[in-house]
Amino acid sequence: MSKGRFIAFEGGEGMGKSTQARLLADMLREQGREVVLTREPGGTPGAEAIRALLLAPPGDGWTLEAEALLFAAARADHVARRIRPALDRGAWVLCDRFLDSSRAYQGIAGGLGDEGVRALHAIGSAGLLPDLTIVIDAPAAAAAERLVQRDGDCSDAIGGRAAEYHARVNASFLEFARSEPERFAVVDGAGSIDEVHRRVVAAAARLLAVPR
Amino acid sequence: MSKGRFIAFEGGEGMGKSTQARLLADMLREQGREVVLTREPGGTPGAEAIRALLLAPPGDGWTLEAEALLFAAARADHVARRIRPALDRGAWVLCDRFLDSSRAYQGIAGGLGDEGVRALHAIGSAGLLPDLTIVIDAPAAAAAERLVQRDGDCSDAIGGRAAEYHARVNASFLEFARSEPERFAVVDGAGSIDEVHRRVVAAAARLLAVPR
Repeated sequence: MSKGRFIAFEGGEGMGKSTQARLLADMLREQGREVVLTREPGGTPGAEAIRALLLAPPGDGWTLEAEALLFAAARADHVARRIRPALDRGAWVLCDRFLDSSRAYQGIAGGLGDEGVRALHAIGSAGLLPDLTIVIDAPAAAAAERLVQRDGDCSDAIGGRAAEYHARVNASFLEFARSEPERFAVVDGAGSIDEVHRRVVAAAARLLAVPR
Repeated sequence: MSKGRFIAFEGGEGMGKSTQARLLADMLREQGREVVLTREPGGTPGAEAIRALLLAPPGDGWTLEAEALLFAAARADHVARRIRPALDRGAWVLCDRFLDSSRAYQGIAGGLGDEGVRALHAIGSAGLLPDLTIVIDAPAAAAAERLVQRDGDCSDAIGGRAAEYHARVNASFLEFARSEPERFAVVDGAGSIDEVHRRVVAAAARLLAVPR
């Protein structure tokens, strides 16, 4: 059993995941805890190299299958080189996207199927799951407005897909949360950054209360 | 059912696979057939980009799991973008290494297990298998001599592994051939290039005899 705590932030594009992960990291560090704040795809030199291939594919773009395998490869490196070592030494790992993004994007919205994505994760990362997955849920309109402010963010190979695809992604996260309530918390992404942060802290309370 | 024919060349390092694949391709082209001569990892822009990551890993080198996922991702792109289209239009595809290399290197010699490698191939490439897999078998000493002549070939992340690892790889290919004799032919790699070529042609005769 690992001694640390592993929290993933999930949700569609422009939901404020990165901002909220950073704010929770700041709070935990002020409490004197070691925090590893990271993201997927990426988080290690190998996984960042794979991220670059994913976001700017050479040739005609990746097929769904190749994309899912590349995400799983990046995750395998990230888990082995960074997440597991951090958890083993008792750190808190806060990760902007993890397995459930692959389940939502490639598995459900893309059509590869949940079983396939989970099989890749079982082989690549021994099926490691977060202790808590915080899904930030906001109306699609609010997310779109934030993305417009973040000029150009939506122009990569995945962010640039059709609105219908992203709607399926968002619905998938909520469905995952309903299926595994013990591992998920859905946080309302409406309101100010501080308001959402207070909801994130409330959602993380179940881990904060447990002695390390 | 595809109309083309798919032949993979397998074996350890320095067995003459590339040379023999090229000679068979020349012969088939002289007979007026369309031949796609390709290699793994690689064969498409996407797969060649993954090849570059595999042979010169960023950071501390790939874990076994990440390596297997990257090979499967490169293969998925290669199959979808190049091999299946070629087979569908009736071409002969000759490939220098394919799935059985992943089974031998990562599955058996590396220790990931054959089931895991086959699961990745099922998800990534719908489990496509060659019509014929030609294993070129040569004494380890002869292969080592050829590799010395090919200066520097053994210096990448995979070729540079210990002799014991490569011995397990070679034994694995022979074991695969024993388990699936209908899909494999083992060709003695001893003697001149022309002598081995004649053995390869004899091994491929079962496909050459079937009308297209």
